[in-house]
Amino acid sequence: MFDSKNPQRTPISDLGEFGLIDHLVKNAKTKLSNTALAVGDDAALIDQGDHYTAISTDLLVEGVHFDLSYVPLKHLGYKSVVVNLSDIYAMNGMAEHITVGIAVSNRFPVEALEEIYEGIHLACERYNVDLVGGDTTASQSGLMISITATGRVEKGAEAKRSGAGDNDLIVVSGDVGGAYMGLQILEREKQVFLENPEMQPELGGHEYILERQLKPEARKDIVELLKGLDVQPTSMIDISDGLSSEILHLSKASGTQFNIYENKIPIDPSIYTLCEEFNMNTTTVALNGGEDYELLFTIKIGDHDKIKANPNLTVIGYVKGGSGANLITRDEKVIELKAQGFKHHG
Amino acid sequence: MFDSKNPQRTPISDLGEFGLIDHLVKNAKTKLSNTALAVGDDAALIDQGDHYTAISTDLLVEGVHFDLSYVPLKHLGYKSVVVNLSDIYAMNGMAEHITVGIAVSNRFPVEALEEIYEGIHLACERYNVDLVGGDTTASQSGLMISITATGRVEKGAEAKRSGAGDNDLIVVSGDVGGAYMGLQILEREKQVFLENPEMQPELGGHEYILERQLKPEARKDIVELLKGLDVQPTSMIDISDGLSSEILHLSKASGTQFNIYENKIPIDPSIYTLCEEFNMNTTTVALNGGEDYELLFTIKIGDHDKIKANPNLTVIGYVKGGSGANLITRDEKVIELKAQGFKHHG
Repeated sequence: MFDSKNPQRTPISDLGEFGLIDHLVKNAKTKLSNTALAVGDDAALIDQGDHYTAISTDLLVEGVHFDLSYVPLKHLGYKSVVVNLSDIYAMNGMAEHITVGIAVSNRFPVEALEEIYEGIHLACERYNVDLVGGDTTASQSGLMISITATGRVEKGAEAKRSGAGDNDLIVVSGDVGGAYMGLQILEREKQVFLENPEMQPELGGHEYILERQLKPEARKDIVELLKGLDVQPTSMIDISDGLSSEILHLSKASGTQFNIYENKIPIDPSIYTLCEEFNMNTTTVALNGGEDYELLFTIKIGDHDKIKANPNLTVIGYVKGGSGANLITRDEKVIELKAQGFKHHG
Repeated sequence: MFDSKNPQRTPISDLGEFGLIDHLVKNAKTKLSNTALAVGDDAALIDQGDHYTAISTDLLVEGVHFDLSYVPLKHLGYKSVVVNLSDIYAMNGMAEHITVGIAVSNRFPVEALEEIYEGIHLACERYNVDLVGGDTTASQSGLMISITATGRVEKGAEAKRSGAGDNDLIVVSGDVGGAYMGLQILEREKQVFLENPEMQPELGGHEYILERQLKPEARKDIVELLKGLDVQPTSMIDISDGLSSEILHLSKASGTQFNIYENKIPIDPSIYTLCEEFNMNTTTVALNGGEDYELLFTIKIGDHDKIKANPNLTVIGYVKGGSGANLITRDEKVIELKAQGFKHHG
């Protein structure tokens, strides 16, 4: 009855996710002197005097970010926490506290919420994080989880997206592409199940990538490792939308050019076999598959010796003056990276 | 395909909102030494050394917390922020930062999100708060807004729910019941509109209560006022679910008995006329209507002189040893207060 008289109707899809967030918050000028870093990084930084508090919020929506036909509720609770903690680690800080908001329709019984919270509590235990607040409410349809994580970042240790400089090395933790291939397996078995509900899903042999998709871990250990090695990342981001997309974020925020080598990208051996089976290109999967929650960061070239022997870290390229990002292929062709990112299913 | 094998299905309605939150987070033991206050108050408190950071999260769900047939999107954005800031003020602190998560279906154009964010930015301006982060995502249906507010609470100034002691006075800011009656007017006009879409809604003369419902303000000014008067509240809560429900929260958390006088409850004169029109009891509306976002708090009896002349504050009763809460009626009957709270429409 009080409909907006605004006659314009621009579909949200016209802007895309990053364009939309940019568009909506572009008017958000910060006013407070303790706002050290606002929108545009993995987390905001609040100056507390002798340290920063990092804050980050994520939403997970049924049918957009997860499919309950194959995501167990306990795993969902666990993953919801982990993906938020990952944003705090990506600032080179230690996650400490979370608040949890859950909107749930009445098709879910109390026992479903209990399973979700079991996963939430387990993640809090595993990462030494306290659950300090929350809100549980009805929804008209479906399930939505909103988590805010906060943590402590020591002054001078903060790793923003914007700090990469000429000659820095580009480093990635763990391996990439696994979570995406895990999703392919789950989607395939879901189709098989829909066509014949008597069939049992064939998931054997895919434990590693299924765990990467269903129960990912955040790289708290890498933040501790870098501290122990006395390596200060010059820039950092977590890999939620895909290696390619994250590299472009660092490049853009830092105003430098990122160059990575195709043959250096760390990929689990099982991915090669599976990509053949699915008729997919392994490099494409590694670049554009998302949800690995590894850390991508840059270090001063002088720190190379400190990290080069570590099996958790792989140097995949280098930074130089300029803009954009390139992939140097196995046959030494230079291909410009595009922000294809990771399209969430659904 | 991996359905939970848990055979129990307890409907969420069996537990109720407070029961549900209690039930789900009862296993959340805190581990960190800087977690000064966790679940169970208006906000959590994190010890930052020389001060606390207060954190609070709220969800607003379409069809549960708001009805877009009469809530303008800009007001919705404004109110979403205000209700969260109110939780920080209820700790006797100053809200400073918010993060915003919005899940939205594709029936909303970009212009709708712009209107919501206009309201969000306006509230940030009005309350001197910085928007520092957020997440915008698709939803399969409807609109959901999740806001986390953080703020600064000076050590020694924190007002928890649990601090009320014997002989303290019970004080409420502003007046109560207005937001609820505003909702009644909007619901009535919606019915008229649904029956005859040619009719224009009759909202004239109800500006005050409509603003209480559609564009409430948080009582930042009361926190500043109390500081100026050198009054430290012994306990405090904001009135989101209704005066009766909030009084019972303070009573339970403090382990004391709250006694309030019917004839002291501050009610706007327009409410009396309107209650007659709607055939409602004014005291019931004042006790059980929610969403006024006034502050309810207790003070030491020795501070009475400091506040008694202030038109923004009304002493409505006193605390004594014992438990529960009573209403002392105009004819001096003592009636036990029950946690009827405020049933959100929808």
